[in-house]
Amino acid sequence: MTVTQLPLMDVAGRAGRLRDRFGSATIDALLVTRLPNVRYLTGFTGSAAIVLVGPHDMVFVTDGRYAEQAVDQLGAADVPARIEVRTSQAGQRDVMRDAAVAYRRLGLEAHGVTWAQQRAFAADWFAGAELVATEHLVEDLRRVKDPAEVARIQAACAIADDALGVVAPRLAGRPTERDVALWLELEMRDRGATGTSFDTIVASGPNGAKPHARPSSRPIETREPVVIDFGCLVDGYCSDMTRTLSVGDPGPEVRRMFDVVRDAQQSGRRVVKASADCAAVDKACRDVIEAAGWGDAFVHGTGHGVGLEIHEAPRVAATARDTLASGYVVTVEPGVYLRGTGGVRIEDTVVVTDDGAEVLTRFPKDFLL
Amino acid sequence: MTVTQLPLMDVAGRAGRLRDRFGSATIDALLVTRLPNVRYLTGFTGSAAIVLVGPHDMVFVTDGRYAEQAVDQLGAADVPARIEVRTSQAGQRDVMRDAAVAYRRLGLEAHGVTWAQQRAFAADWFAGAELVATEHLVEDLRRVKDPAEVARIQAACAIADDALGVVAPRLAGRPTERDVALWLELEMRDRGATGTSFDTIVASGPNGAKPHARPSSRPIETREPVVIDFGCLVDGYCSDMTRTLSVGDPGPEVRRMFDVVRDAQQSGRRVVKASADCAAVDKACRDVIEAAGWGDAFVHGTGHGVGLEIHEAPRVAATARDTLASGYVVTVEPGVYLRGTGGVRIEDTVVVTDDGAEVLTRFPKDFLL
Repeated sequence: MTVTQLPLMDVAGRAGRLRDRFGSATIDALLVTRLPNVRYLTGFTGSAAIVLVGPHDMVFVTDGRYAEQAVDQLGAADVPARIEVRTSQAGQRDVMRDAAVAYRRLGLEAHGVTWAQQRAFAADWFAGAELVATEHLVEDLRRVKDPAEVARIQAACAIADDALGVVAPRLAGRPTERDVALWLELEMRDRGATGTSFDTIVASGPNGAKPHARPSSRPIETREPVVIDFGCLVDGYCSDMTRTLSVGDPGPEVRRMFDVVRDAQQSGRRVVKASADCAAVDKACRDVIEAAGWGDAFVHGTGHGVGLEIHEAPRVAATARDTLASGYVVTVEPGVYLRGTGGVRIEDTVVVTDDGAEVLTRFPKDFLL
Repeated sequence: MTVTQLPLMDVAGRAGRLRDRFGSATIDALLVTRLPNVRYLTGFTGSAAIVLVGPHDMVFVTDGRYAEQAVDQLGAADVPARIEVRTSQAGQRDVMRDAAVAYRRLGLEAHGVTWAQQRAFAADWFAGAELVATEHLVEDLRRVKDPAEVARIQAACAIADDALGVVAPRLAGRPTERDVALWLELEMRDRGATGTSFDTIVASGPNGAKPHARPSSRPIETREPVVIDFGCLVDGYCSDMTRTLSVGDPGPEVRRMFDVVRDAQQSGRRVVKASADCAAVDKACRDVIEAAGWGDAFVHGTGHGVGLEIHEAPRVAATARDTLASGYVVTVEPGVYLRGTGGVRIEDTVVVTDDGAEVLTRFPKDFLL
């Protein structure tokens, strides 16, 4: 699969599935303000737009910077929205007020509007309507990826695999963490990625004890673990992979950390399938790490959904109440972090299937370079 | 000024200036949830933290991923906060509930909490307090940059200048827009930037008619305008610069667009000084473009503040009510966009002084390569 051969997505069909949820949410219409949701429903990739999804129509408002792009992108996706361009807040308000005048119960994305926006909507934009706090209506649709979406995530994962294949051998040359991060990003861009899906983590030696360390100017030494957590974007979709590598034998403690985390990751991955509880995936990882005596050193959840956002529903954690379904794309990424020593984390991005998990991140999990 | 010679910032002194505003905001304490504000007040650069600023103390809560980083960064900045690490929402709630129990009027950042968060705070976290919608209390402090902050923005601008100096001559080789974007990012990273301050825009020929176009695989041709809008990060602070270039004469219409935008940009820049109205800066730009008959083609505001965020207060626009003050850092970036032809935009990042503007983006504004 190369980036240029991506299958077409049925963007225009998504609004209908959203409308199917209006009844149970007891709303007449939904004001979509979260940009990943705007993109999902319309194909628009810009940084400013609001969409009012009514029972039979959609009104899309953006500002002057995006007039042409909105027409192009909604047209390309065949999305039947009325596009309005207003650069002032007052102008946007007037369009939306007129468009929403017939709706009695208007849904807002409670996680996607600020309290300040909600106050302005209630007092000014939609003073005649009852505003309803909806929870994740579009995000819940986005959990199940269709094959065209999976193809994008798969392409992004394949690019990351290839990039690490080129860069990993260079660790022996004592590069800085920043060098390695930059090389990975370059190789991913060279292969058609539009950017990184999050800030690349390259954390060597003691720096690895911080799960979300930033790449520093520290040179990577031999015989120490290097946590490399990175991903890229293909047509807006993210990849996410972590590998922990060492140039030369890092000694028995780190070797044991690696073995435990690899076993934990495999245990978690084996639980993944449609109808499995997210908490069970987390427990499968955590049990292995706890049995090794490092329960307190696994300081984060096991994983998260991946799609148009690098962190999306569902969470894969001890406190999660979600159940996996076919088409979900999630990460499985246990880790052990020891202050002074460093960290080991191993992460795959997988597609949930009826009877298991298809692993999209295929770079080998061997530890020693 | 190299990146390694950055002067120390007085991070610890900022909370005191915030507390000075509690009286007029009629709050006893402020719950700071916007991450750039958390960073400003504490030096913490991670992706998850909440800070309760009381009249005499600060409580900082993060999750397990950032336990070590929080101790390191708040310690390095000498910020006297009590640091608590809780990975569950319930655990974070319990810490904050206890810490806030004595406050009757608790400020939230109305632009920094979602409606869903505010509802959870009101019903569960802080049920005994009156929640007050505050507006931009920390953002307003952040408008005035101290010399150590300006030094960071200046370093980021200098890196961008140098990167464009290396990359601009390569436009003659018919690279794609994506190539140019990647080269710029590489050169900036090579010079010590930690990343881009926003997605780089390289928009050639007709693509330039979209002010926020994304770099495409279109090869850059001779005799057409190429809008290059980009910036980088130095210690969290952003730079922002746009230049429009052409390899060979693009013909009389584009030449005239360029002359008009350059004149407009200069006019706007000349109005910048302490006590000038932001709307007056916008008007100075807009008047020149309107006089040329292209008022409708200048489809965005003239500029914005730059700092820890690429877009921060104040806005520089026709509808802005802000007044500039010494130490503000803002952009001046008029443009003209003609469908089918392309775009011309010229942008500087400037520091407002008592009697004018110090331009930080020094790359020449010549048009022809």
